[in-house]
Amino acid sequence: MYIILMAGGTGTRFWPMSRRCKPKQMLQITGSKSMIEMTYDRISSLTSPDKILVITNSDLKVSIEKLLSKIPAENIIAEPVGKNTAPCIGLAGAIIQARGDVDDIMVVLPADHLVDDVKKFRKTLQIGVSYARENDCLITIGIKPTYAETGYGYIQKSTKLQKKDGISIFKVKTFAEKPNLETAQRFLQSGDFLWNSGIFIWKVGQIMAEIDEHLPELGQDLAIIKNAVNKTKFNKTVRDVYSRTKSISIDYGVMEVAKRVCVIQSDFPWNDLGSWEAVYNISKKDKNGNVVDGENSILLDSKNNYFYSKKKIIAAIDIENLIVVEVADAILICKQDQSQNVKKVVEILEREELEKYL
Amino acid sequence: MYIILMAGGTGTRFWPMSRRCKPKQMLQITGSKSMIEMTYDRISSLTSPDKILVITNSDLKVSIEKLLSKIPAENIIAEPVGKNTAPCIGLAGAIIQARGDVDDIMVVLPADHLVDDVKKFRKTLQIGVSYARENDCLITIGIKPTYAETGYGYIQKSTKLQKKDGISIFKVKTFAEKPNLETAQRFLQSGDFLWNSGIFIWKVGQIMAEIDEHLPELGQDLAIIKNAVNKTKFNKTVRDVYSRTKSISIDYGVMEVAKRVCVIQSDFPWNDLGSWEAVYNISKKDKNGNVVDGENSILLDSKNNYFYSKKKIIAAIDIENLIVVEVADAILICKQDQSQNVKKVVEILEREELEKYL
Repeated sequence: MYIILMAGGTGTRFWPMSRRCKPKQMLQITGSKSMIEMTYDRISSLTSPDKILVITNSDLKVSIEKLLSKIPAENIIAEPVGKNTAPCIGLAGAIIQARGDVDDIMVVLPADHLVDDVKKFRKTLQIGVSYARENDCLITIGIKPTYAETGYGYIQKSTKLQKKDGISIFKVKTFAEKPNLETAQRFLQSGDFLWNSGIFIWKVGQIMAEIDEHLPELGQDLAIIKNAVNKTKFNKTVRDVYSRTKSISIDYGVMEVAKRVCVIQSDFPWNDLGSWEAVYNISKKDKNGNVVDGENSILLDSKNNYFYSKKKIIAAIDIENLIVVEVADAILICKQDQSQNVKKVVEILEREELEKYL
Repeated sequence: MYIILMAGGTGTRFWPMSRRCKPKQMLQITGSKSMIEMTYDRISSLTSPDKILVITNSDLKVSIEKLLSKIPAENIIAEPVGKNTAPCIGLAGAIIQARGDVDDIMVVLPADHLVDDVKKFRKTLQIGVSYARENDCLITIGIKPTYAETGYGYIQKSTKLQKKDGISIFKVKTFAEKPNLETAQRFLQSGDFLWNSGIFIWKVGQIMAEIDEHLPELGQDLAIIKNAVNKTKFNKTVRDVYSRTKSISIDYGVMEVAKRVCVIQSDFPWNDLGSWEAVYNISKKDKNGNVVDGENSILLDSKNNYFYSKKKIIAAIDIENLIVVEVADAILICKQDQSQNVKKVVEILEREELEKYL
C-alpha cells in the first residue's frame, strides 16, 4: 500500500508566517512539529517508508528530505509548478505504475491538515483501504460536519454500502463547492452532507484508468512520465508535461464524473486550517475569547482576538475580532472574517516585486 | 530673562515608544529632533544659555545635559520625584532668587509640546514678557481653539487689557478643566474660551510671592531650598522637601486663585501631543486617512489608522480607527479613542513588575 503526501502548497494564507520557502505544511502551527511531520507521524505505521511518496515543489524538496529522513530521498518528488491535485496524483500514480505496483492501494493525503484522534483516523483509512481493495471504487473521506462551515467543499452521500466498526461507507450523490452560509446551514441540517477532507483511497491502476478516461490529455502525458521514471530524461519530461498540462483538481476532473465513487463517513476531528481564523477557532481561548501565542500580553477591554508574537509583549486596548501576527520582518493586522484575504497581500507583494517578504 | 523648560514628565501615554529613560520630551515624534531639542531651538535666541533652566528627573538629567550641551550642566536640575507643576516652578524660582535675579522675568514652558510658526510664538512671548515686566501680573498663554478638543484645559477671557501687533491680552475670568464634548463645543461657540497651553510668563519675585500667599507650606519649603542653593546640602534639602510637599499644579494652586492673572490670546499652531491619537491627528494622511510611519505597508480596505513600525512591513485588512505601534520589544494595538488609556497598560506593567518594558 502506497501513501502519497501532497505537500506542494505555497500557503499564502498564513503570511507573514508562511513564506515561499516555508509554507503551511512546514510550519509549526499547532505544536512543536510541522504540519507535514505530524501528517507523517499519523501514517508512518501504516506502510513501509519506501512506499510513502511526497509530492512537493523544488523550494521545499531538500527541507522535506531532512524533516522526513526515513523516507528515501527519491520518494520526495518536486513538481516544477503546481497544477492542482489531478496532475500531482497522476504523477505519483505514474511513478508507482513504473515500479510495477499497479494493483497496490494508494492513499492520498494533504500534508497540511489538522487531525485529532489518530486512532479513529487510522481505523477510517484501514476500512477504506479494505473496501477499495475489494470493490474497485474511488473512495473519498467525508467528515461529519459539526457546524455550518463555508470554507470547505461538501460531499452529499446517498445509499449506504457498508457499516463496519461504526464507520459507514456510502455512494456519493454529488460534490458541492464551498457554500454560502445559508447553503451550509441547509447542508448541516439535512444530515446528508459531509465535509470533503481531500483524502482519497483507490487502487493505483484504477485512478490512472479514470484519469485516462476523464482527463485523456493528462493520461497521455502521465504515460510519457511513466516511461521516463528512473531515466535521465525524467526531470526534463516532468518539466515538459507540467508546462503544458492544465491545472485541475482531482475532485473536478475525476471524482465528480467517475462512476464508482463512494465516501467513508468519519468523525475524527479534522480541520484544513485554511486561514488564521481557522487557527484562532481551534486554539484554546482565555475567558474573553482571546488567544495569545507569544511571550507576554496585556489585554484591556479586548475580546475574541488572535495574537501571535513570539518575542514582544502585546498590549491591546478595546480591540475585537482581530488577527495580529508579528514575525521578524512583518506585521499583519486583519479582521478575522477577512483572513481569507491575506492571500491578496501576497499577490500585491508579488506584483510589487517585494521579494524579501515572499 | 529666564526661561524654564519643564521636562520631568514620564510620558506613559506614548508607550511602547516612550519609556522611563525616554519619555515623550526625549522622543523624535514629529521629526528628526526630540521634543525638548525643538523646544530649546524655539527659545534659545531669546536669552543667554545660563538663564535657561531645565527641571527634569534623575533618569533624564545626563541625557538632557548631552542633548542641550549649550546650557550649563548646573542649570539642568533633577527633581527627586514629580510633584506636578507648582513645586517644579517654585524650585526654578528659588534657584533664580538665590542668584539674586528676583526682578527678572521668568517664562515657563513644557518641553514636550508641538508648536508651529516659531515667529508668531516668539512674538507672543515677547509681548507677554513686556506686559509682565510693566504690569506685575501672572500671564498665561491661551490658544484660540480651532475645534472642540476635550483633552485640553480652557481659559475664559474677560476684559481686553491690550492689543499690540495683532495680539491681545485679556483679564482671565475662569480656568476650566478638560470638558466633555458638549461643553467643549459650547466653549468653542462662545468665542470666550482659549486652550490652556501651560506656558506662563511672570516676574520671579511675583510668582514666589503668590506661592507664599496661596501655597504657604510650599513657600516655606522653597525658602529652605533657596538658602541651600550652591551648598553641599542642596540635593538633600531638595529630596527632603519633595518627600513632604504635596503634588499640585500651578494652575490649581495659584493661577485660579491669584488676583492679577491675564491671558495672551495667540493662534500659533499648538498641540500638547497628549496621546497617539494626537500624533495621528497632526500627521499627514493618505487618501484613506491612514498614516504609516515605517518602511513599507500594504493596506487593504483600511482607513483612518496610525501605524508605526520602523523595521517591518505592515499589512492591514479591513481595519479602522486603530493605533498600531511596534518597537523592539513590544506591540500596541489600540482603538484611537482609547489611546488615553495607554497609561493603564503602563500601570499594569508597573504593578506586575515587568520592569523591562517600563
